[in-house]
Order: sequence, then structure tokens, then C-alpha cells
Amino acid sequence: MRPVKVVLTEKEMPRKWYNIAADLPHPMPPPVKPDGKPIKPQDLAPVFPMNLIEQEVSRKRWIKIPDEVLEKLALWRPSPLCRAHGLEQALGCPVKIYYKNEGLSPAGSHKPNTAIAQAYYNKVFGIKRLCTETGAGQWGSALAMACKLFGLECKVYMVKISFEQKPFRKMMMNTWGAECVASPSPTTNAGRAVLAEHPDSPGSLGIAISEAIEDTVTSKDTRYSLGSVLNHVLLHQTIVGQEALKQFEKLGEYPDVVIGCVGGGSNFAGISFPFIHEKITGKADKEVRCVAVEPEACPTLTRGPFAYDAGDVAMMTPLLPMFTLGHAFVPEPIHAGGLRYHGMAPLVSHVLREKLIEATALKQIECYSAAVLWAHTEGFIPAPETSHAIAAAVNEARRAKEEGREKIILINWSGHGLMDLVGYEKYFAGKLVNLELPEASLQASLKCLDGLPKPPAL
Amino acid sequence: MRPVKVVLTEKEMPRKWYNIAADLPHPMPPPVKPDGKPIKPQDLAPVFPMNLIEQEVSRKRWIKIPDEVLEKLALWRPSPLCRAHGLEQALGCPVKIYYKNEGLSPAGSHKPNTAIAQAYYNKVFGIKRLCTETGAGQWGSALAMACKLFGLECKVYMVKISFEQKPFRKMMMNTWGAECVASPSPTTNAGRAVLAEHPDSPGSLGIAISEAIEDTVTSKDTRYSLGSVLNHVLLHQTIVGQEALKQFEKLGEYPDVVIGCVGGGSNFAGISFPFIHEKITGKADKEVRCVAVEPEACPTLTRGPFAYDAGDVAMMTPLLPMFTLGHAFVPEPIHAGGLRYHGMAPLVSHVLREKLIEATALKQIECYSAAVLWAHTEGFIPAPETSHAIAAAVNEARRAKEEGREKIILINWSGHGLMDLVGYEKYFAGKLVNLELPEASLQASLKCLDGLPKPPAL
Repeated sequence: MRPVKVVLTEKEMPRKWYNIAADLPHPMPPPVKPDGKPIKPQDLAPVFPMNLIEQEVSRKRWIKIPDEVLEKLALWRPSPLCRAHGLEQALGCPVKIYYKNEGLSPAGSHKPNTAIAQAYYNKVFGIKRLCTETGAGQWGSALAMACKLFGLECKVYMVKISFEQKPFRKMMMNTWGAECVASPSPTTNAGRAVLAEHPDSPGSLGIAISEAIEDTVTSKDTRYSLGSVLNHVLLHQTIVGQEALKQFEKLGEYPDVVIGCVGGGSNFAGISFPFIHEKITGKADKEVRCVAVEPEACPTLTRGPFAYDAGDVAMMTPLLPMFTLGHAFVPEPIHAGGLRYHGMAPLVSHVLREKLIEATALKQIECYSAAVLWAHTEGFIPAPETSHAIAAAVNEARRAKEEGREKIILINWSGHGLMDLVGYEKYFAGKLVNLELPEASLQASLKCLDGLPKPPAL
Repeated sequence: MRPVKVVLTEKEMPRKWYNIAADLPHPMPPPVKPDGKPIKPQDLAPVFPMNLIEQEVSRKRWIKIPDEVLEKLALWRPSPLCRAHGLEQALGCPVKIYYKNEGLSPAGSHKPNTAIAQAYYNKVFGIKRLCTETGAGQWGSALAMACKLFGLECKVYMVKISFEQKPFRKMMMNTWGAECVASPSPTTNAGRAVLAEHPDSPGSLGIAISEAIEDTVTSKDTRYSLGSVLNHVLLHQTIVGQEALKQFEKLGEYPDVVIGCVGGGSNFAGISFPFIHEKITGKADKEVRCVAVEPEACPTLTRGPFAYDAGDVAMMTPLLPMFTLGHAFVPEPIHAGGLRYHGMAPLVSHVLREKLIEATALKQIECYSAAVLWAHTEGFIPAPETSHAIAAAVNEARRAKEEGREKIILINWSGHGLMDLVGYEKYFAGKLVNLELPEASLQASLKCLDGLPKPPAL
């Protein structure tokens, strides 16, 4: 048989997270308050435990992964590096396609990589309860599991329309003992204010964030937890790329292109930052390209300006230096719910400005088409978010054929689609459409940035 | 960190299936026709390809796994052998609990282990299309995937009530390109006959088998495929137990108890038969106990007689020598749909008669209670079928504490419960009940065995 995958033993698990902040050619602009003054670590103390705030602002290159975290990650990690022989054969292009299967975690995606770490650090800081928000439910279910494993309570504010349309994610959270409520809820001032004006509000990530933060700062022994965007979240995901580096070393190969989908940015950062480290420090024997793939319906990196913007609609978060479509932006209802975010992780935004990565935007239907080809040739059914990385890999493969050159492609296969089969059903029924963003709508959305401080030029 | 699991590389994958028929102390009675005459291999030729019929009747101890099959299995195999530290800690009993995680396959259960093999053998025999039936949909989705990977068409007759209540399994099959229809369907004589009498029939596995077989024998280049019960199906699952043996060898340990749930018997056989081989041939350094766990609602091994009985309600299959509740038996609607089968694999039935295994029956609610404890301590959410093995392991652990002796327990963790969350929701809402089988109902059901040939005594 042809070799299919490279596995690592748990003894070979990376023992440190990689902090790209240590290696940036230019320093990142700091998060600021609405008056433009930098946020200080203690400003964040009511919302996050100090041990995670220290990670958020750290410039240390390597940060030790605690044994207690490794032991929980080892429930499913290291993830295998698999060769997509079936897809390669179907494409007939001169490429090798590898993927890190992050869909094998109990919650079915890469999200538990940081959920486990965040639950652990909150636990050792003496916190008893975590609050968070979730859109489609991937993050909420990952945090619910992590909290239960470390004996913390967990409350999830789930965007109401998803709460009603995706009852299975809510059932996952309940199974892991979390309390999951529809947002806007009548239990917070933020929720009540929305409900007073719009009793039938379908909710939004922005409202849910406001509710989760309000709950956090008004409750005892409670902190807030975020599933992407922030530096410490991206840090926790770098175990993925480090594993991939070890696996390629065993293979005696090295990728030409590393591909991940981007919503908030943590999945893409997780696989690409360790490769960027090799690139920056001259360790790589190849000039690897790192490609972030977003939906055309939410083209943050490819069409948004770099600006200071809030992470939520209600502007309760600090202003982050990032590519953004404006905090008031409401993306069209594409099925890849995890990619429907107006902003982008500051670290991912920064490495794009530094030209260390590339970004591309794809249409929904070509992503589903690639996802179906994947399921038919590789077995695993991809999540709609993951389908973006697959479609980009297919495009890279076809380009390699046109250019007549060989290529090794690495995909971060961020999660399975078993909880998202309705999108496939609609695709097969011809009911999916490409949801693009008219320029006028983008410009209208960007108006909310007027009057906010501007980040310095690179 | 404490070691969590033992992984094998794909080079360490077993290269042969283990055929327990070669090692039985007494030979099995053959399948027979209603007149009591043994079935001949050629009698099965319209239904199965000859290469699988050869496996069905083979007495060869080891049967080579083709490279093409290994390569597809390697999409997720070898499966890890994991230590359930979290569960052990919660129980506080003097046991080590290990589990083979068969939930990592693309379809989420052990079923693809045989689906891949069956699709391959049909493919090389020149078959273009497979028909099968499915209850809750685990088997139908596994075969749909396997057929697509080998380029075969696939048609699944799904019990109508499940077809309507569990749309997600149907969507999985559709995603893998299979045609899935509700049974009884208007496209077969068998289906039309039922619909004429009962237009609102909810369907049954028996009706669905009749439809799938009728479709098979009346269609070109088509064969039938079964997900459990038959010898060749159990054979294909023995890769699980063989991997476990290698993994225990690496650990320098050996289990005292091997536990699997039983519906048709393939999951339990897959893990236990290689251990029984060691026991029979004196290779084991311990007297390992193998425990088959069934629901009290469908107590085939613990309360059924050993008899010749048909595999389906319509008696279209040969008569198999097995423990059975009678082919007319309709189990109560427990959530573990995969364990709702009136009969038991002849090989599993035979090894119970030979006293090489034990059997136990558990109540639905204690199984859900154990499954929730598992999800809370080990992360992965178990399928309702799998919960039976977990509950039995919990009972073994508690007994070890009472007896004051240490024990190593191995569970075949047959699949995840992400497609079965409704059962958990009902459990948390207090809406689940224990569905037992009154003796009078059992006796009434067994009347359908009157007049059938009787198997010889051991």
C-alpha cells in the first residue's frame, strides 16, 4: 500500500507554543481605547485571568504548554498528517496534497486546542465559571467540553437564529453540562435593551459578545473566553503547525503552499505561524507561501481597510488594529458560519501587511463543489469553513498543472461537517447561491469607522 | 504528562484478518434452507459476490487484507488505544480502562471497517451497484462512503420511521452519492405489498431487507451487502482486536476484560475474536474474559433460545444457527438503534455456547448515565450503542473495588453520538424510560420459530 499518513506519538507532541510576536519585522500597533490611548494589561483584568493576559501581551518566542493541558489535548492529539491520494488522483495535477485532520477532536474542529488551554488557565487562576458567545456553535461546544473536563461552569450566549436553526450544537453543549441560551436574552441589560426595541431580533455575534461580557463583569469568579482573534488564542493553535513541521521532517518533504480558511484567524494562524517562523529565521529550505482563504461574502483581508475597529457591534471590546469590514457589518448568511466575522486577528492582519502571507476570497458554490469532491475521494465530510481551504488547494493544484511545475500543498483541515449537513442538502438541491458583497454595501458598512483612531503606517 | 494513548503507524497495521472458524472447539452448524438442508455457496451467488461467499465459508485462519483495502482503511486506521484517565479518576476504582476509539472514521463508527472491504470485493468481482438496508443509518452511511470511494453505485432502503426522524443520516448518505429511500417504498413488490395493506407503515428492518434483496436479484450487476451478522462481516472487523493486541504488547500490559456492545455482533466480534484466539491457542498470559453487552429491551444472548431462524421478518434469508428472539420480534424503540436486532451473529452465538464469552443485558437509563459520565470525563460523546459497553465497564470497575482486586478493562468504543444527540436531550429532560421485555411478549414472539428445523446440540 501507498503510505497515507504520518502519525506522531504523544511523546513527540510540541511542548511549547510558538509566539510570532517575538519574530515580527515591525512591532504590531497596540490595542487602544476609543481615545486612542493603548490598553494596559490591568484594563483587561475584569474580563480575562491575568495568566492569559500575560500571554496576550507576551513577546517571548516559546511559551511552555502545561502538562495538564497536554494531557487533555492528547485525548485526540497529535493529529495525523494525511496524504490526500484520492483527491490527487481525481485532480490529475502534479501535486502532493497533505492535510492536518483537526476534525478528530471530540467537538469536531480545531477549536478545542485553545478551549482546553483557556479552561486550564482560568482554573489555576481560581476562576469558577466562563462565559462566551457562539455563532454556529463550534466554539461554544468546544468551550463547553473544555470547561467540563476542568470542572468549570460554562455559559454560552448563542446567536438566536442559530440557536433555533441548529439545535444539535446546543444539545452538544448541554451534553457537556454547559448552559446555552439564545441571545438576545432577557437576563442581561444588553439583551433586554435589544429585545425592548426588537422583540423578534434574530441576534448577532455582536449582541452575544455584549451579553457574555456583561454577564462576566457582573458575576462572581467569572471570566470571559474568546475562540479566535486574540493573540493568546492564536498562540494555542500553533501546536498544529509545529506538529506538521515534525511530520514533514519525518517525510523528508516540505510544503510549497500552506492553506487555511480564515474567520477570526486562529485556524490559519495555527498552521501557518510555525512555517512563517522558519521563513523569517531562514530555517526553511523553501520559500513557503501561506494562503489565507476567506468567503467572498465576508472579504475582510481582501477588501477591508486596515484600521482600528471594535471586535463587536456594541463596541465593548478594545479597538484592535486589523483588517475590517466595519463592526456594523452583517455578512450574508453563508453556511460557513465560522467565517462570518467582520474583523481579523491583529496578528494575521499584521503578517499580511508584512507580506508574509497572501489572502484570497472564494465563492460559496465553488467551496461546496470542492467539499463534495473531497468527501467522494477522501471520505471525511468537511465543515463548510474547511471547504474554503480545500477549494483553494484545488485551485493551487490546477495552477500547478497549467504552470507545469510540481507542488506540495498543506491544508489545515479545520473540522468535519457532520453537524452542517443541511448546507450539503441545499447544494445538491441547487438551492445555494453565491453571496457577494456589493461595493456600495461595503462602503456603507465602513462608515462606522469614521471618527475612530487610525493605526500608524507600517 | 501521564501517557494517554498508544498509536500504531500504518506500517504496523494488521495485514490479515483473523477467521475464528479455524479455531472453534466444535464446528458451527451450517446455515440451512427451510427444509433443513444446508445452504451451498452457489445458492448465495445471486446475492453476494463469490469472493465474499468464499470468505463466508472459509476455514482458513488468516485471510490477507488486500492493499487497496488497507489504503482506504488507513484514512483513519490504525485507531488509537486510549487510556480513560478521566473516567478512572471519577470512578475511584482499582482499574485501568482502555478503549479503542472506532468513532474516528468518516462515518463515525466501526462500520466502515467492513463496508470498505465489501465494496472492494464487489468492485473486483465486476459488480457496479450495491443494495442494502439500514435502520438508524450507521450502516447505510458507512456503505455509501465505501461505495463512493470505490466508484460503485449504492442504494439504501432506510426504515421509514428513521428516514423521517433522522434526516441527518440520510443527508450523509446523499453527500456520499448514495440513493437513500424510505422503506416500505413503492418501487419493489415487497414494498408495494406492505403499502397496500398498511399505507402508513413505519417500516422495519425486516421489510427493508426484503426490499434490498428484491432490488438486488432483479437488477443488473448488483449485489446485496450486510453490515453485521455474517461470518465475512465479523472477519473484517477483527482488525480492531488485532491492533489492540499490538498496542497492549507495546504497553507491556494485557486486559482482564474485553467489552463490546452487541446488536448483530460485528463490533463485539471485532475486538474479542483476536483475544479469543490467544485464549484458545494458549498464547495469552492471562485468562481474559470477553463480555458482550446487549440492551434489556433486546436480550438476544441473555434470554433468547439457540435456534435456526431467519435474519429478516419476511424469511428471505437462509436460516442461521443463532440465539434469537424470533424473526417476528419488534424491539421497543430504545435509542441504541444498532442494537435492536432479533438475532445474533452465528459466530458470536457459537462462542457463547462454547463458553468462550459471557453476555450481559443492561437498562437504557444506566447506559445513558454512563455515557454522560464518559463525555464529562473523556470528552468524546458516545453513541447510544457504545454507551452499553461503557456502562458494563463501569460495573466491572465497581466490582473490582468491591472485590479489592486490580483489573485492566478494554472497551470497543464503537462510535460517536454526534448524530444521536436527541437521546441525550431526552435523558437530561428525564423523558427516557427503561424498556424491558415481559416474559409473555418474548414467548409470544418465539412462536414464529415453531416448525423450523432445530440445530444440533453442541
